[in-house]
Amino acid sequence: MSPNSKVSILMGSASDLEIMARAAKELQGLDISYELEVTSAHRSPHRTVEYVSGAESRGVEVFIVGAGMAAHLAGVVAAHTTCPVIGVPLPGSSLGGLDSLLSTVQMPKGVPVATLAIGGAGATNAGILAAQILARADTSLRERLDSRRREMAEQVAASSEDARNQLGRLLGG
Amino acid sequence: MSPNSKVSILMGSASDLEIMARAAKELQGLDISYELEVTSAHRSPHRTVEYVSGAESRGVEVFIVGAGMAAHLAGVVAAHTTCPVIGVPLPGSSLGGLDSLLSTVQMPKGVPVATLAIGGAGATNAGILAAQILARADTSLRERLDSRRREMAEQVAASSEDARNQLGRLLGG
Amino acid sequence: MSPNSKVSILMGSASDLEIMARAAKELQGLDISYELEVTSAHRSPHRTVEYVSGAESRGVEVFIVGAGMAAHLAGVVAAHTTCPVIGVPLPGSSLGGLDSLLSTVQMPKGVPVATLAIGGAGATNAGILAAQILARADTSLRERLDSRRREMAEQVAASSEDARNQLGRLLGG
Amino acid sequence: MSPNSKVSILMGSASDLEIMARAAKELQGLDISYELEVTSAHRSPHRTVEYVSGAESRGVEVFIVGAGMAAHLAGVVAAHTTCPVIGVPLPGSSLGGLDSLLSTVQMPKGVPVATLAIGGAGATNAGILAAQILARADTSLRERLDSRRREMAEQVAASSEDARNQLGRLLGG
Amino acid sequence: MSPNSKVSILMGSASDLEIMARAAKELQGLDISYELEVTSAHRSPHRTVEYVSGAESRGVEVFIVGAGMAAHLAGVVAAHTTCPVIGVPLPGSSLGGLDSLLSTVQMPKGVPVATLAIGGAGATNAGILAAQILARADTSLRERLDSRRREMAEQVAASSEDARNQLGRLLGG
Amino acid sequence: MSPNSKVSILMGSASDLEIMARAAKELQGLDISYELEVTSAHRSPHRTVEYVSGAESRGVEVFIVGAGMAAHLAGVVAAHTTCPVIGVPLPGSSLGGLDSLLSTVQMPKGVPVATLAIGGAGATNAGILAAQILARADTSLRERLDSRRREMAEQVAASSEDARNQLGRLLGG
Amino acid sequence: MSPNSKVSILMGSASDLEIMARAAKELQGLDISYELEVTSAHRSPHRTVEYVSGAESRGVEVFIVGAGMAAHLAGVVAAHTTCPVIGVPLPGSSLGGLDSLLSTVQMPKGVPVATLAIGGAGATNAGILAAQILARADTSLRERLDSRRREMAEQVAASSEDARNQLGRLLGG
Amino acid sequence: MSPNSKVSILMGSASDLEIMARAAKELQGLDISYELEVTSAHRSPHRTVEYVSGAESRGVEVFIVGAGMAAHLAGVVAAHTTCPVIGVPLPGSSLGGLDSLLSTVQMPKGVPVATLAIGGAGATNAGILAAQILARADTSLRERLDSRRREMAEQVAASSEDARNQLGRLLGG
Repeated sequence: MSPNSKVSILMGSASDLEIMARAAKELQGLDISYELEVTSAHRSPHRTVEYVSGAESRGVEVFIVGAGMAAHLAGVVAAHTTCPVIGVPLPGSSLGGLDSLLSTVQMPKGVPVATLAIGGAGATNAGILAAQILARADTSLRERLDSRRREMAEQVAASSEDARNQLGRLLGG
Repeated sequence: MSPNSKVSILMGSASDLEIMARAAKELQGLDISYELEVTSAHRSPHRTVEYVSGAESRGVEVFIVGAGMAAHLAGVVAAHTTCPVIGVPLPGSSLGGLDSLLSTVQMPKGVPVATLAIGGAGATNAGILAAQILARADTSLRERLDSRRREMAEQVAASSEDARNQLGRLLGG
Repeated sequence: MSPNSKVSILMGSASDLEIMARAAKELQGLDISYELEVTSAHRSPHRTVEYVSGAESRGVEVFIVGAGMAAHLAGVVAAHTTCPVIGVPLPGSSLGGLDSLLSTVQMPKGVPVATLAIGGAGATNAGILAAQILARADTSLRERLDSRRREMAEQVAASSEDARNQLGRLLGG
Repeated sequence: MSPNSKVSILMGSASDLEIMARAAKELQGLDISYELEVTSAHRSPHRTVEYVSGAESRGVEVFIVGAGMAAHLAGVVAAHTTCPVIGVPLPGSSLGGLDSLLSTVQMPKGVPVATLAIGGAGATNAGILAAQILARADTSLRERLDSRRREMAEQVAASSEDARNQLGRLLGG
Repeated sequence: MSPNSKVSILMGSASDLEIMARAAKELQGLDISYELEVTSAHRSPHRTVEYVSGAESRGVEVFIVGAGMAAHLAGVVAAHTTCPVIGVPLPGSSLGGLDSLLSTVQMPKGVPVATLAIGGAGATNAGILAAQILARADTSLRERLDSRRREMAEQVAASSEDARNQLGRLLGG
Repeated sequence: MSPNSKVSILMGSASDLEIMARAAKELQGLDISYELEVTSAHRSPHRTVEYVSGAESRGVEVFIVGAGMAAHLAGVVAAHTTCPVIGVPLPGSSLGGLDSLLSTVQMPKGVPVATLAIGGAGATNAGILAAQILARADTSLRERLDSRRREMAEQVAASSEDARNQLGRLLGG
Repeated sequence: MSPNSKVSILMGSASDLEIMARAAKELQGLDISYELEVTSAHRSPHRTVEYVSGAESRGVEVFIVGAGMAAHLAGVVAAHTTCPVIGVPLPGSSLGGLDSLLSTVQMPKGVPVATLAIGGAGATNAGILAAQILARADTSLRERLDSRRREMAEQVAASSEDARNQLGRLLGG
Repeated sequence: MSPNSKVSILMGSASDLEIMARAAKELQGLDISYELEVTSAHRSPHRTVEYVSGAESRGVEVFIVGAGMAAHLAGVVAAHTTCPVIGVPLPGSSLGGLDSLLSTVQMPKGVPVATLAIGGAGATNAGILAAQILARADTSLRERLDSRRREMAEQVAASSEDARNQLGRLLGG
């Protein structure tokens, strides 16, 4: 974490940290400064609003927000800023995250939340999407994103050979 | 509507009025004072918070909140008061209200929203539930509620004879 | 548990106790008297009806009802009283509680059940909602609720610092 | 309708009659006596229980119960009789009857409700299933059911030729 | 198991036995003769049809059928008999049995399957429903069913006291 | 329609014809012979089995099967042939075809049904998939399929210009 | 529409235009240049890939993509650019857009699609989110967004008085 | 695996191998040559398209594609070939594969994906369906498929006796 952060990672409960750390890891890998805060739309609403205003005035450009169940936190943040807000629905409930997905994505006309996949894939992608947004004004970040994309393609190709070898073992051939 | 209202009916959009008017109608029938306001968790967040504080200090005891899609309004109201908050999920989206139901009912630990059925039945029941809550401190309201309940039982009995007559016509007997 | 209870906690099966104890714990923390009973809408219907009538005449003001699957118990209780009935859908089935949620919340016009989240969060919130209802006629309880709310906000703030420390460890920084 | 009915058709609201009349029509076609009653699990619970006891003592052998939303009526009837209870989930809500289906079918251990398809197909099949049950003790009814089944097979075969003709017209060939 | 069985318990795979044994246990407890067969609608269709015809001619009066995923077995059995067919949707798939429930219950007009809850509760209730059907022609079985029902009510009452004791321990009071 | 058909189009009810005619139209456009039959897995099971055996011996190579609700027809056909069976779930029920989709696609191990989209898109694609299968042994059909694919790409490109013009009108520019 | 567009609006079919025009309208209102294209992930895949590369090299910074059913277009676009891709799930199918929502939002790790609400609200919000992203490098656009937000808050306040007047008429008071 | 493969098995991630190996096993058992590749619609899109073209020109006749979450891979493959494409939705996400099922099966008009059950049963059936397709031009393969089908029927019959023995042990009889 660093001062003068470009990205703020928020979550409704400290128990969401393990998943949301994947967003932080992705930002770190792309050399983007961020800060992280636990704050609740429901249990600490004043703190949430004050934090969002403060963050924006300190230079935060993108908010990444993870929340579960009736996941209102991303929407509440989006109501208090016109910076892009990225929502990561978390899967903690017995409904597998269908509740947090719908609570995050189905925002009414006027206040968007850029919603990603439920859980870990969504958290990783939140880091990447934040970078893609910041890259609009940062040419070298565009290059780091392109390079990361090529790296992923190479990993896929490499895993293919591994899979064929493993299949031989699985089928006893 | 009247001053010194005991109940506040809130909705996220004026297009929700037709359904939410059923709550008002039920309160009026039970002789309970109420006020009604359109305010959005997302498009007018400051106004929402100010309204809730003001209403509580003017003597509102129960909030009835209708909202659709990612229905955050009831949760936002509940975050700013410890009065009971009743949520009515509205069915406007293409998902038939499953989104607003989950966004309203799946509140995390600490901040309850008393959720009722999607749409019109929920709005009617919101008026009745508000009355049941206020009746804890109002014996004559308890009697009006009991009387309303007996009336409903009589209506059911009366409709049974009608249905038998109608069946004869339907089956041509 | 105590005589002259203000709240009755009901559940359809003794196996629901572990979750429903969270409602009891919340009531105990807010110094509200309650009683607890296992009774089934389907396997012991007469006992259920007799219990509800008796409880109301002994001074119970709010019913908290937990049930799973085709969760009819809250609705059956609500049919026999005009006190507020709070429903907690339980997640025991293979559908993750979608069945108990819909069976509890989708009550027809005339007989509301104040429905909360599926499972543990719903049970905790049932205790809080019961307190919010009783607080309409109990000023000191309002204060205890406000104090509980402030306490929650402080816990959120405290957990934020912890999360930042934990993140450092997770990312090896 | 006739005295000494073998089957009772129940529904929670007179507005359910149009669908539930299909069960009556099927019973009439199979020459089975029935009676029909509107009664609500929630709005007229005492009347419901009294009706079920009375019907069983008058000789009713099978109950057919249609209800929508949080459809508790079939379960409440089943709690007060050990006659077979057939449930027809009705599709009136914005969820297309998923609520009434789960509320009817997911009965806990000990008290079954024989659940059929949502809406009109379920109501027709309720008449047939009631006949199949009564046919355990009525050899001539078994023959009427077998004959009805052969008739259906013939109707299918006949409709096939019609469909081929219609296809020619649709495709302009 | 016994010759001259009144009930046939069918399942699509031997892996369904553990759940379907609950139906057998219930029938045994009510002193009803049954037979059990594994047969598949898809992998052994001829065997299935032959078995159903044979069973009916040997005196089977009710079929209990458990199946998972696209659960067609109950429908296929129902297509080849006019005896009552009871369907138990099994939860083996990743969708928690929503697939087998809809495949079993949503039968088209003309061929009912009496569907019960997904999984174990459904299997137990299948035994009880079969008994309720056979009891139309067996007065002593009616008495055994009534007695079983009273027993269940007593078990509920007994568990209530246990739950209160356990709560004391849980809350450390 | 023609003798010596390569493809058989089956449906459970003549009311499914309008949707299933899209499969016929696609086959006709690709110059593939087909036959069409209405037959029910449940109401005319013997006829269904006899038809499938007969069709296979007459030279049918692929079955296209449309059915709604608990859509068993495709599975029943697949149980009686080792030709490829293509399933089209139909949307007639109040659940929008979720029931027919799951009943068609979730076939257990051993007997596949090649399932396509719910409703009209699925019926059109059934004609194309049948052609893709037959094209394994028919080089000129491969060319017709490739040509059809190029045609679709050109239609998309053409529609783009139209859409831009229409947008100008919509936005008044 | 204009040359040197900053935003590209894509859709899988010209029939999606009416909904996607709302994104265009929002961009126009915020004075942002855009272009619009119909192209299909499945029917014109080469054209789609070529278009995306060309658009990016011409200066497009954000893609807005609407698609229905198995909505792959946004994902395919995202696979060929590291610009932010905004997905709007369209509700055309019988499942109300649950299919297009899940197909758009549940992107695997590495390639995010910023998903918004199903249908019209999502299309409007896509225009706003694209503006929020471009505003990272455009201070005057930030001001237009803030001004648009204030305007929305004022519209909500104005509609509240209207709703109260309408309620008076609805309830005959 | 072998050169001159008739079938290509593709998957989006090496972690899908364990499930997709069941398709390979089935093909091996039916003596059909296949090849296997890991490639991603999103992370390695160019490689995917090149692979599909190459495979088709080397003589691959059928593609089997497994993917999870927003499962686009089968659709992308289908967009680049007119060979039959078989889709296997994988259940890895918190939604139990409902997302991958809908993303695979709900293909728009023009480009079919032959979709099978979620997970292992679907992978096994993919091998069988590929064989059924290839058997259109291979009489001896038809015989191997018929023989495999008879074998399955015999296994079902054999398992029935086992189940009866096991039941005796389960019920202590």
